[in-house]
Amino acid sequence: MAERVLIYDTTLRDGMQREGISLSVSEKLQVAHLLDQLGCAYIEGGFPASNPKDWELFEQLERETFTTARVAAFGMTRRKDIRAEDDEALRVLVECFAPVITLVGKTWDLHLDKVVRVSREENLAMIGDSVRFCVAQGKEVVYDAEHFFDGYRADRDYALRCLQTAAEAGASNVTMCDTNGATLPTQVAAAVADVRAALGPSVALGIHTHNDAECAVANSVAAVEAGARLVQGTLNGYGERCGNANLVAIVPSLELKLGYACVGPERLARLSQISHEAAEICNLQPDAHAAYVGRCAFAHKGGMHVAGMQADVRSFEHIDPGVVGNTRTVLVSELSGKGTVREKAAEFGVELDQAAVDRALERLKVLEHRGYAFEAADASFELLLRTEAGEIEPLFSLETLRVITEKRADGRVETEATIKLRVRGERVVQTAEGNGPVNALDAALRRALTRHYPELGRLELANYKVRILNPHSGTGAVTRVILDTTDGHSEWATVGVSPNIIEASWEALVESLTYGVRLRLQATAEA
Amino acid sequence: MAERVLIYDTTLRDGMQREGISLSVSEKLQVAHLLDQLGCAYIEGGFPASNPKDWELFEQLERETFTTARVAAFGMTRRKDIRAEDDEALRVLVECFAPVITLVGKTWDLHLDKVVRVSREENLAMIGDSVRFCVAQGKEVVYDAEHFFDGYRADRDYALRCLQTAAEAGASNVTMCDTNGATLPTQVAAAVADVRAALGPSVALGIHTHNDAECAVANSVAAVEAGARLVQGTLNGYGERCGNANLVAIVPSLELKLGYACVGPERLARLSQISHEAAEICNLQPDAHAAYVGRCAFAHKGGMHVAGMQADVRSFEHIDPGVVGNTRTVLVSELSGKGTVREKAAEFGVELDQAAVDRALERLKVLEHRGYAFEAADASFELLLRTEAGEIEPLFSLETLRVITEKRADGRVETEATIKLRVRGERVVQTAEGNGPVNALDAALRRALTRHYPELGRLELANYKVRILNPHSGTGAVTRVILDTTDGHSEWATVGVSPNIIEASWEALVESLTYGVRLRLQATAEA
Repeated sequence: MAERVLIYDTTLRDGMQREGISLSVSEKLQVAHLLDQLGCAYIEGGFPASNPKDWELFEQLERETFTTARVAAFGMTRRKDIRAEDDEALRVLVECFAPVITLVGKTWDLHLDKVVRVSREENLAMIGDSVRFCVAQGKEVVYDAEHFFDGYRADRDYALRCLQTAAEAGASNVTMCDTNGATLPTQVAAAVADVRAALGPSVALGIHTHNDAECAVANSVAAVEAGARLVQGTLNGYGERCGNANLVAIVPSLELKLGYACVGPERLARLSQISHEAAEICNLQPDAHAAYVGRCAFAHKGGMHVAGMQADVRSFEHIDPGVVGNTRTVLVSELSGKGTVREKAAEFGVELDQAAVDRALERLKVLEHRGYAFEAADASFELLLRTEAGEIEPLFSLETLRVITEKRADGRVETEATIKLRVRGERVVQTAEGNGPVNALDAALRRALTRHYPELGRLELANYKVRILNPHSGTGAVTRVILDTTDGHSEWATVGVSPNIIEASWEALVESLTYGVRLRLQATAEA
Repeated sequence: MAERVLIYDTTLRDGMQREGISLSVSEKLQVAHLLDQLGCAYIEGGFPASNPKDWELFEQLERETFTTARVAAFGMTRRKDIRAEDDEALRVLVECFAPVITLVGKTWDLHLDKVVRVSREENLAMIGDSVRFCVAQGKEVVYDAEHFFDGYRADRDYALRCLQTAAEAGASNVTMCDTNGATLPTQVAAAVADVRAALGPSVALGIHTHNDAECAVANSVAAVEAGARLVQGTLNGYGERCGNANLVAIVPSLELKLGYACVGPERLARLSQISHEAAEICNLQPDAHAAYVGRCAFAHKGGMHVAGMQADVRSFEHIDPGVVGNTRTVLVSELSGKGTVREKAAEFGVELDQAAVDRALERLKVLEHRGYAFEAADASFELLLRTEAGEIEPLFSLETLRVITEKRADGRVETEATIKLRVRGERVVQTAEGNGPVNALDAALRRALTRHYPELGRLELANYKVRILNPHSGTGAVTRVILDTTDGHSEWATVGVSPNIIEASWEALVESLTYGVRLRLQATAEA
């Protein structure tokens, strides 16, 4: 039997430290479910009361059901010179519903002397008291030894005593943290092996690393090889500075290359999708070159490699891409694609003959080259296929549209959109104001169409995402807009692309309403 | 004395395999000089005749002078069943001016049997003949053993014989290549140590890795620790699939953490600049989170970390950022307090009295609550502080602005912006077209101001980012725009926030030009 390594995710706490990431409570819940789908053993949600948003997150997490993951609340060992039960923060942790509490404490003399000004003995008491208090309240405690490797270099014996104290107080796991990201793999391996020998096999060890020397993944793997059985990290390695250990690279290396059991083959096959969805939720571009899951991770270019691959895929692929839910792409070949088109058509229940498949593929390639991304806009892709199948009639034909934004001397900004169009033979001219150009366009278009399509009243724009595709061209760059629309029951996503953000938004808007009226509401009516 | 590790760069060959990179000959020469500034021992230029561009590159390289780097031409061992001197490609290599020839050959039985269909013995002859031929022509030969680690796993003894053959034929270095990126650090370390023991200390070993398991840097470092003394990689890890080994992370780890001599402290201090310039030449965004050199690599956020840092920088920094030419930055966020404001003021050289610090902090909190993010927009924050210090006069006063976007029945989209403003007592009315609203506004504003501020002609928008802050409110959400602007020397970022994307962009645009004229260009003039 393969040995088990537990995956502990801290995307919702450490990951949020990455510059530019800021998630709402509902977005954090979406990430939590992705982590559960991946098969994480623990999901760390942060400190339940560092601000109202985190408090609300825990209230919501309590109501959710997870299949593999247990929720962990994060906090520090007690303050110095008080009893654990008198520490406000520890009380918050034990009163929180989370079955797991992760406590972080000090290990490094430099830190004790210069930063927190606590004696070595009091620090040990803070560790022991805090762990015991939480365990006595029925919690599972994971102990995080901050700056462990710095502390180990400075004073090995004291660093070991810190871990020992946490373990003896009842921590289910003591995790060694490379808080500064200072340590290299051989150093991690030697320290973990030493700890393992000193503490004995009854103490479960964990590893938490940062990527400051671009070694966080290797450090995590090295620690597991040396005896750690819990790995802390984040989706896509999000985290402050250079990021945390990237679970998306660690899990497949442990499972596929070293034979450990982390999440199992079924969940591993969702890895690429989960990584990309997490990026979308964080409004970050998925890294095309990411190990295992990147769009280019199995992209083959150049005659020699492609020929080698066709002779034996192992000659240029370290694993089968399907195992992590990725796909091989041959950058010069047009063979890739037809299978996908047929597969999607079957999924949507669209009947396409050979010629229509060819046309759809051709159109797909032209559009993707121009910056469309149908991976995140299934509704637009379904419309594309149904259009090739001859099923889709446009809702209206546009004559002109005009959007005017004016900013006055007093600072007030006003936007109005005017649309002239024909719908079912009738010419309609409609103007609407909005708090921005897209809002005004949306209002004008719905008003123009409502008499003919009263169903539109039930649709709502749920999400609006903008991505600049080639940002180095400055404001001359191409803009991709993704709109999520809901009818209260289900949600669908459409895409628009243009150098002009208003045009891109208009395109996504029209597709969203077309899909809603033509497909979604029809389906509801039939049901 | 520190042991020497030679840095071998293949950005100009393997790096060019990255999707989207395409450099002209003159851009490749710029990269070559960056590599020389960094202190690389070898610069690999590619095969001198695989296409006319590469031929021209070698012609140009011949005329250049480098201080540390020797130029290497790259090719394969001879074709099977002919003499080395009859191999066209080998003749091209020996006739090229490059003093070093890097020859790649096969190691792996799978590859020999299924792809190239060459017997094991003939493969050894191909290696030996080719190396001997080039050495006899007065060249230094580096031998690259392709798929070495796969070959080693499949048939250790044969893999060793391949290396031995190249060494005996006169190769100055035999480099083990992890062509698929399949191998993990402990596996690399074990194989290299075994090779070292088998071949003896007289054979110099090298390492060439790929990042398919996000371990290329760690694999390179592990190989050096096990005895390799030459490391092949690329600037910023550029390369096909998930990239090559990233020299920008390997060099400082070897020098600063393991005590090897690669490029020396003086050249190491240029590392950040070289990394960023290489990205610019390749038209790629420098990775803000890159180890050692990223803009965020030494960025500190949150009260606890900043307080810890002020007590002792080692408590949250693994190296002194100046050693690799990077700088510490304190990220401004709603978590920050007066300490952060004072520190930023000192960094910018702004004098603020206590009342001004209070006002700045108050304003910061109000703005961040409304969605501003100053951590990614230092220039806007500097303007905010200087405004509180009474230093900043606006460039102009706005009367009105108007942006009109029209889409016609034929699908054509046109955008024009009209601005009415007063600049230095003069009223200016200016209209400009653009391919989108921001582009049109930018054009109109610059035209309106250029007569009074001719310096504006030197500024360029380098990057335009849009983030919808509460996307679930649909198009009614708040938009945050971040603009990066450059004057050709440095780059600065400004932020704008509004429910209306045009207003948000306008705000960031005005701040960007104000910063450019008031601060950046003044500083340049004074220097």
